[in-house]
Amino acid sequence: MSNRTLIRGGLLLTAADETHADVLVEDGRVAALAAHGSAAAGSWTADRTIDATGRYVIPGGVDAHTHMELPFGGTFASDTFETGTRAAAWGGTTTIVDFAVQARGGSLREGLDAWYAKADGKCAVDYGFHMILSDVDESSLKEMDLLVEEGVTSFKLFMAYPGVFYSDDGRILRAMQRGAGNGGLIMMHAENGIAIDVLVEQALARGETDPRHHGEVRKVLLEAEATHRAIQLARVAGAPLYVVHVSAEEAVAELAAARDRGLPVFGETCPQYLFLSTDNLAEPGFEGAKYVCSTPLRPREHQAALWRGLVTDDLQVVSTDHCPFCFSGQKDLGRGDFSKIPNGLPGVENRMDLLHQAVVDGRISRRRWIDIACAAPARMFGLYPKKGTIAPGGDADIVVYDPRAEHVLSAETHHMNVDYSAYEGKRITGRVETVLSRGEVIVDRGEFTGRAGHGAYTPRSTCQYVN
Amino acid sequence: MSNRTLIRGGLLLTAADETHADVLVEDGRVAALAAHGSAAAGSWTADRTIDATGRYVIPGGVDAHTHMELPFGGTFASDTFETGTRAAAWGGTTTIVDFAVQARGGSLREGLDAWYAKADGKCAVDYGFHMILSDVDESSLKEMDLLVEEGVTSFKLFMAYPGVFYSDDGRILRAMQRGAGNGGLIMMHAENGIAIDVLVEQALARGETDPRHHGEVRKVLLEAEATHRAIQLARVAGAPLYVVHVSAEEAVAELAAARDRGLPVFGETCPQYLFLSTDNLAEPGFEGAKYVCSTPLRPREHQAALWRGLVTDDLQVVSTDHCPFCFSGQKDLGRGDFSKIPNGLPGVENRMDLLHQAVVDGRISRRRWIDIACAAPARMFGLYPKKGTIAPGGDADIVVYDPRAEHVLSAETHHMNVDYSAYEGKRITGRVETVLSRGEVIVDRGEFTGRAGHGAYTPRSTCQYVN
Amino acid sequence: MSNRTLIRGGLLLTAADETHADVLVEDGRVAALAAHGSAAAGSWTADRTIDATGRYVIPGGVDAHTHMELPFGGTFASDTFETGTRAAAWGGTTTIVDFAVQARGGSLREGLDAWYAKADGKCAVDYGFHMILSDVDESSLKEMDLLVEEGVTSFKLFMAYPGVFYSDDGRILRAMQRGAGNGGLIMMHAENGIAIDVLVEQALARGETDPRHHGEVRKVLLEAEATHRAIQLARVAGAPLYVVHVSAEEAVAELAAARDRGLPVFGETCPQYLFLSTDNLAEPGFEGAKYVCSTPLRPREHQAALWRGLVTDDLQVVSTDHCPFCFSGQKDLGRGDFSKIPNGLPGVENRMDLLHQAVVDGRISRRRWIDIACAAPARMFGLYPKKGTIAPGGDADIVVYDPRAEHVLSAETHHMNVDYSAYEGKRITGRVETVLSRGEVIVDRGEFTGRAGHGAYTPRSTCQYVN
Amino acid sequence: MSNRTLIRGGLLLTAADETHADVLVEDGRVAALAAHGSAAAGSWTADRTIDATGRYVIPGGVDAHTHMELPFGGTFASDTFETGTRAAAWGGTTTIVDFAVQARGGSLREGLDAWYAKADGKCAVDYGFHMILSDVDESSLKEMDLLVEEGVTSFKLFMAYPGVFYSDDGRILRAMQRGAGNGGLIMMHAENGIAIDVLVEQALARGETDPRHHGEVRKVLLEAEATHRAIQLARVAGAPLYVVHVSAEEAVAELAAARDRGLPVFGETCPQYLFLSTDNLAEPGFEGAKYVCSTPLRPREHQAALWRGLVTDDLQVVSTDHCPFCFSGQKDLGRGDFSKIPNGLPGVENRMDLLHQAVVDGRISRRRWIDIACAAPARMFGLYPKKGTIAPGGDADIVVYDPRAEHVLSAETHHMNVDYSAYEGKRITGRVETVLSRGEVIVDRGEFTGRAGHGAYTPRSTCQYVN
Repeated sequence: MSNRTLIRGGLLLTAADETHADVLVEDGRVAALAAHGSAAAGSWTADRTIDATGRYVIPGGVDAHTHMELPFGGTFASDTFETGTRAAAWGGTTTIVDFAVQARGGSLREGLDAWYAKADGKCAVDYGFHMILSDVDESSLKEMDLLVEEGVTSFKLFMAYPGVFYSDDGRILRAMQRGAGNGGLIMMHAENGIAIDVLVEQALARGETDPRHHGEVRKVLLEAEATHRAIQLARVAGAPLYVVHVSAEEAVAELAAARDRGLPVFGETCPQYLFLSTDNLAEPGFEGAKYVCSTPLRPREHQAALWRGLVTDDLQVVSTDHCPFCFSGQKDLGRGDFSKIPNGLPGVENRMDLLHQAVVDGRISRRRWIDIACAAPARMFGLYPKKGTIAPGGDADIVVYDPRAEHVLSAETHHMNVDYSAYEGKRITGRVETVLSRGEVIVDRGEFTGRAGHGAYTPRSTCQYVN
Repeated sequence: MSNRTLIRGGLLLTAADETHADVLVEDGRVAALAAHGSAAAGSWTADRTIDATGRYVIPGGVDAHTHMELPFGGTFASDTFETGTRAAAWGGTTTIVDFAVQARGGSLREGLDAWYAKADGKCAVDYGFHMILSDVDESSLKEMDLLVEEGVTSFKLFMAYPGVFYSDDGRILRAMQRGAGNGGLIMMHAENGIAIDVLVEQALARGETDPRHHGEVRKVLLEAEATHRAIQLARVAGAPLYVVHVSAEEAVAELAAARDRGLPVFGETCPQYLFLSTDNLAEPGFEGAKYVCSTPLRPREHQAALWRGLVTDDLQVVSTDHCPFCFSGQKDLGRGDFSKIPNGLPGVENRMDLLHQAVVDGRISRRRWIDIACAAPARMFGLYPKKGTIAPGGDADIVVYDPRAEHVLSAETHHMNVDYSAYEGKRITGRVETVLSRGEVIVDRGEFTGRAGHGAYTPRSTCQYVN
Repeated sequence: MSNRTLIRGGLLLTAADETHADVLVEDGRVAALAAHGSAAAGSWTADRTIDATGRYVIPGGVDAHTHMELPFGGTFASDTFETGTRAAAWGGTTTIVDFAVQARGGSLREGLDAWYAKADGKCAVDYGFHMILSDVDESSLKEMDLLVEEGVTSFKLFMAYPGVFYSDDGRILRAMQRGAGNGGLIMMHAENGIAIDVLVEQALARGETDPRHHGEVRKVLLEAEATHRAIQLARVAGAPLYVVHVSAEEAVAELAAARDRGLPVFGETCPQYLFLSTDNLAEPGFEGAKYVCSTPLRPREHQAALWRGLVTDDLQVVSTDHCPFCFSGQKDLGRGDFSKIPNGLPGVENRMDLLHQAVVDGRISRRRWIDIACAAPARMFGLYPKKGTIAPGGDADIVVYDPRAEHVLSAETHHMNVDYSAYEGKRITGRVETVLSRGEVIVDRGEFTGRAGHGAYTPRSTCQYVN
Repeated sequence: MSNRTLIRGGLLLTAADETHADVLVEDGRVAALAAHGSAAAGSWTADRTIDATGRYVIPGGVDAHTHMELPFGGTFASDTFETGTRAAAWGGTTTIVDFAVQARGGSLREGLDAWYAKADGKCAVDYGFHMILSDVDESSLKEMDLLVEEGVTSFKLFMAYPGVFYSDDGRILRAMQRGAGNGGLIMMHAENGIAIDVLVEQALARGETDPRHHGEVRKVLLEAEATHRAIQLARVAGAPLYVVHVSAEEAVAELAAARDRGLPVFGETCPQYLFLSTDNLAEPGFEGAKYVCSTPLRPREHQAALWRGLVTDDLQVVSTDHCPFCFSGQKDLGRGDFSKIPNGLPGVENRMDLLHQAVVDGRISRRRWIDIACAAPARMFGLYPKKGTIAPGGDADIVVYDPRAEHVLSAETHHMNVDYSAYEGKRITGRVETVLSRGEVIVDRGEFTGRAGHGAYTPRSTCQYVN
């Protein structure tokens, strides 16, 4: 007979509904939901029963933007698939979509296989892959078709980082055209890197070498410009577009204008843009280096536009862009030259909590919390309703969340493999209590009960916002 | 023991999800959902089992804008609460929200009680009421508070019809301010009626008396203007706003601009604006009178903007504004003077089918169909999740819908009490098969099995899009 | 032989050109311009020669918005046509266009004749009239045609002041339609007075009676709303529109949007909106009453949008709305009730200087100064090139202006008949030195040499911005 | 004694004014203007008197965009400085600003000197030079400063033509920064050439080789995109921007949006975009090649936006982009491959007439004709008021224009050195009668009386729209 778990008495939250329902899990999947106190619920028995009274019962988080073990600037992101996915589990995230990287001159196949190998047998939660396109040519375009069939259905391009990941507008157009045909979704790092590199060179020449200058040279106008350009190229290609890590009010405005026209254009922002600002980049000494990422943190005034975009659905997804580098030994590669600071912040463990704090603060509703953190990323990247919701037939990736518990974010207590927290000292109301991944309890009231290798590779269908 | 109905084998559609699940109904409510073939589902027994294999299982429709028995222009809308709600049931709509009318010089109480009395014991499906404010003064503003507590939580004002329902901007502002305080939602007929009446008088003076001139004098710019004005007044009042029967592209643009700013502004359109146009108003002879309503039908080019608004969520709700007048004996009051034609169209029976046709035609997704026809109106007017979805704990208002059946709309076969169909001859793919209202089967594969008086008055909470 | 005056050696400034040219005046008109030092210039002789070396030679100012002796709120504007036009001359303004008022229930004819009589024989500089429409009906619409032929080619309507000057949207539409036919230009006071009066009543009921509350209740959104509405009504009528005393950024945005569509929509602002703000309204005690006018002064942040509008030509004209009331005996009618403070500020004498200060401050160019203060108002109201420029054949209304002289604005030294200056203590660089009106010197280096009755009534052609 | 010419009895038209004035020319310059019939005018005598009764007296045209003898695609534009400037004179244009070209790898100095040499002693009318920047590097940036001082104050960059004239965004940004410092104005060919080249390659691969495909691959969205990008880069640099040959409605919208913000952004269109369309590109056989230029001709619907832009001043200048290639022997280099067709049209002789036809057709006013064809280009490129107007002290570049004469444009009768007319058979009302260049009559009622070498090189100051 099947293995059954029953979650009783909680308030079931999905992106759509708030339901007073018990959840019955059979063999790793959600089998049924029944109203509290109904005869149907009363008749259920289970091997294990979790009491969720006074708790939220929510879908496990889907973090669609992580970079475990990413090679960058001569070093590697400090979280491995093992440490990073364990931290994800602690934070209530049960699926990540990481980025496999095509090496310049190499094939997509080689890059993808390398990433399969890195993750294999290491992960605490389920995972999928996007593919970073470093070379767009006839060969890689053909490989795109194969990857889409294989379940790697999204491809990231960069308008920034000339000489590294940068693709020119012709390559971007070709990749978009291919995606329009095979269903692959183009994800865009939208910053005019060619212009930014001029400003970087000029700033360094003027002796402006501190972390805060990183924010000053990567101008808002150059993010907005690239966002606009990517949208226009997508229109020419007849393709949808997903813009990653949107940070500037003017970039949100470009997305909003496109969406008002009914174009299939989507935007992601990240907790760091919602909660941090150039004030952090300007922290004294070299502290600002902790907050160096691209797109950069923006002046505090931009936050309101990001929150508004999340409310108006001009931004659909909050991912972390989790890409940690230790302050000691990694970030300090850029002392005396901000352009040498490895770009990235830790965050995979903090996302669900930070966004619940926004619920507490009245910025978003409970349902919108689940939407931007679970349902929308799952739909965007072809994982719904297996992931991202709690519905009969879906995977039993479930978090029992205590909305009243309080705790403080800190490097002392977090589980990510990095020596600082970007949110050190921040008080949070709300906390993960219990986490199920495909029916298995992997976090149990303050204890990690999962294991490396439980997490399974999950192929994805194409974007579910596009028919 | 409880009365149990089981709906087996269908594809459960809600605004949020498409789930292969069986639905268990206990005592008029949805008790549980279970994945097809799960052990949980297999263990269920019921008094009645409905086989929904190959069918959609959807929430009963919520039509938030009907005018049964409305007195207008010296006559009455031809559907009574009995005939109109029976037709609604035939069409898969299990809740209507009708408009009680305050008489000029009378109290809200008197108007509301009169409408309670009209509907009491007559309805085939559940119903609620909005209140039309004809006099905004200290007395009626105080009554608003009481009505909100009583479950009448929305109030309609008119910027059109001077001397009848018209409120000037000061009265509108006062009502909005009151609503901002007590949670009542202002619904607005947004046309500049003062300016329109000048154009009506001038047109008649020029001998332009045919039905098509009704469309010409009620100009797009004057709908857009009033929409803009209503939004600005709502901003001054700090109140949300719901604009009824949006018909013009330029009005959609005003709503979109407001929503981009994050303002709590909402819009409804109706099937007649989506499927009909000024071409119908210009039908030869007096035929155009069948299509006279206000806001008027617009040139065909406006339809694309309305569909786009439904996709971008700048329009949230499709209601019917069902207000039928017979062609013989009622519409012909306006022969020789279009301004005397009773304003209104029949439609309560056709809405679910017409919108499913839009799914078939690729204009909207299946989930969006349920959203604009069921979930969003229920949320907008404080009925969710009791109405508008299928979730444990909610009312078992459920439609088994055959997405492949074909039929033709016609006055010959419809059940509305009116001698013409606005969609005569239109072929529809998709058809209501079985309808449950609070667990009771009221339409059973082509037979009406309900009864007058089954439908219950349903008090409403305040708008669920505003916290 | 003719009377000849020669102005030698100055820099001739017009809206279009900066020319080093001598100006020859014959019989009250500009006869010829010749390059400094040309043989042609050298051959000229004259009865009187004015040395303008180091000076600007500019057209006399055209102030298109004054209210001499206006009856308002139970009192009269304190400048008569005699004192007001004399002060205008002192300030380098050689033409005013004042507003004749139709009494409610009276004819345009009667109102206009009354104003002809008030001004006749009193004025120091030339003058014309706009007509305020208080009753729009068949009779007054017919009179509009006659007035246009007679040279009164512009008609002011009010969306504010219900019960006094207010016209509803139907009356506005009819007047615009008539203007579209006869060439009359509709000037609009664009504030939603119906809504404002609600806010006034509520503010007074809350005990908010100080001058600053005048600014708070007349909300920016209600100016923007009315501006938008007036534009839409003008589009329906197919008529041009001139919006008076634009004060809010959002209203400028409405004008800019209309002009981007190529609509014949025009806007005027006034020095008080460019140089003063709600800071003045909030001056301690009852001092704020000095700055009460409608539209009201706005928060300082709006000034940038007004200056930008003047640069982008979304605003074309700067007039004064000169309507002075003495602080003692007039403004104090509103102690304890801001709604009783007579609305209006003095300014006819200060406009040319204040706008030159904007040249000195780098906000506008010298040519733009002449455009907004002389040429544009002359074109707008059918006086160009007789007024508003210095060109062969035009009236010799000429000011010799010293761009380097400094002085201080003060009630102690001004010539307007009012006991305070709105700009008390403001330092100005630039000063009127000599003023000619139709060739006659009326201000001669600090001495008034004109006379009451020199100023002639000047009929106007229709708006020259509309073909 | 000086040489004097008197032009009597005409209507003097400038961008600002319409004046009934006689014009006195002394020694090649305008000495004086006097009202017809004034004593001053009556006293004038002259060596030569031209009767302009019934004629317009207008400034000679300024064509700010010509390419005489341009090397392009393996051939040369067919007009030399001699033939091209003679044709300009015939057409009433008395100043051209042509483009000197920096060779890749060469210095600006070398390029400029080569163009000085080509033009020297050849021109019938005055001329200046812009500089095309092919290499933006430290060396050429330094040379920019020298050229500005020398009177070459504008620099053209290309976002199109990769591998030929193309500059990437970094080079563009650097050049704009330099211009912001030294006053040089950046002129931009705004098309995303990188993306276009992909579409060209794909079209040719599909066998789409006809001239009309030239228009199809150079998409409207890619002009709009580049226009937006150029504006953003100019904002980052703090520099003004002039966009050449704007052809698409969406590009005009980008300029309008920028100008509404008060940005110093300017736009030029050309007669071919105003009068021709993709209908011409699609003419049967290879005829469409006559109309191949870049930006390409657009669908007819775009013309309205261009005309509106000229009325709203979102476009300031109409130049010709005169760059003729003979149909036989040059255009046919591209038979079978549209990408090989030399880009360019003849037009320097037709501009003044075509724009006057727009006056006759009611699209623009007479004054706006002079503005966009004479005054604005002169101001834009630092030639005003020496060129572009008729004012005391300016050059006597004057055209006596008969507004009622009719003629037909044709290769049979035109004076440009090219075997076809882009406007063959077009009837024009209005014709050049007499042309003076610096006081010398060079076209005298149908006879060319000028000579190669009369035209003088004219150094320019910096853009006069920017302070």
